[in-house]
Amino acid sequence: MEDNEYICHIDSAHHDDKFKKEMKNRLNRIEGQVRGINRMIQEDIYCDDILNQMAAIQSALISAGEILLEAHIKSCIVEQIKHGKVEAVDELMQTIKKMIR
Amino acid sequence: MEDNEYICHIDSAHHDDKFKKEMKNRLNRIEGQVRGINRMIQEDIYCDDILNQMAAIQSALISAGEILLEAHIKSCIVEQIKHGKVEAVDELMQTIKKMIR
Amino acid sequence: MEDNEYICHIDSAHHDDKFKKEMKNRLNRIEGQVRGINRMIQEDIYCDDILNQMAAIQSALISAGEILLEAHIKSCIVEQIKHGKVEAVDELMQTIKKMIR
Amino acid sequence: MEDNEYICHIDSAHHDDKFKKEMKNRLNRIEGQVRGINRMIQEDIYCDDILNQMAAIQSALISAGEILLEAHIKSCIVEQIKHGKVEAVDELMQTIKKMIR
Repeated sequence: MEDNEYICHIDSAHHDDKFKKEMKNRLNRIEGQVRGINRMIQEDIYCDDILNQMAAIQSALISAGEILLEAHIKSCIVEQIKHGKVEAVDELMQTIKKMIR
Repeated sequence: MEDNEYICHIDSAHHDDKFKKEMKNRLNRIEGQVRGINRMIQEDIYCDDILNQMAAIQSALISAGEILLEAHIKSCIVEQIKHGKVEAVDELMQTIKKMIR
Repeated sequence: MEDNEYICHIDSAHHDDKFKKEMKNRLNRIEGQVRGINRMIQEDIYCDDILNQMAAIQSALISAGEILLEAHIKSCIVEQIKHGKVEAVDELMQTIKKMIR
Repeated sequence: MEDNEYICHIDSAHHDDKFKKEMKNRLNRIEGQVRGINRMIQEDIYCDDILNQMAAIQSALISAGEILLEAHIKSCIVEQIKHGKVEAVDELMQTIKKMIR
């Protein structure tokens, strides 16, 4: 286990049940949307409708990622900075860069 | 049924079996990845790893969208333009804009 | 000169004066915004305000790109497809992919 | 002046000369690229080349934004968190969201 994870997991409020449930609902919905697109392609639904649905999934996935990122910064990153582990920001930046591009 | 769809669906080579199979594989994989993230969150896996995995799904979804967009342009849009229905480009632009943002 | 450019440039209505003037205005504004950010950084303006301004430039640049892409498809690409040069779509897809990511 | 800015500006190492010079060079280059595109459109250069150049500017602007964001987090945000002002993360999230979309 890495040091980062350690500090992160000490915080018992890391992800509470409410957060986990919300993410579960969001990701279940996204999973269902992906399955729906798969079916639409097999059934020769008009491409344009499928592409619009795909854009909606992208958007839902970005929202889910933003919520998780916020929870991550507010728990793990803030905790590490308070413990003087400012290098946690380097790792965070790598993650944000992947989300921006 | 709209006119656009009509012209599009005349073309029997709209989506051949090879294309459908490739899309099915891609979307099955994406569906599995979304399910995986859901499980990772419930199991308190380190957020950063989940966020990286989310970025990978985004990327896979964009690739799948690009492949479908290309197939759409090469079949439906080209067909409509050849039939003088240049207004198909307006609808296409709306879709591309949703994918760009 | 490439074949694609040739067909494209035959069409004398390629970019009319109104289009050129609109693009000129948009790009002049963007250029001014970039210059403004440069000054803000030198003057130690609060980063968050600069980052918000940067996001606004991104958005303005995307809009300008979408307008040019639409003009490009409606003139050059449609023209080429009508002349049976369907391979123009391959080049178009490369461009769209760069804009999507 | 807001509290956030205050804490941020106490830190005299906020943006050192090296950082300012690097950002100046990057933004000067971007400004020149925007001016170049403006000229290309007026001179009827092939759209596809312009669109590719636009994508290059987007990419350069994103890189500049990422560098500024990193500097912002490492100075202002870290400083505020150390001072117990965890609400700085809310403002940061708003900014990151604008950059992601």
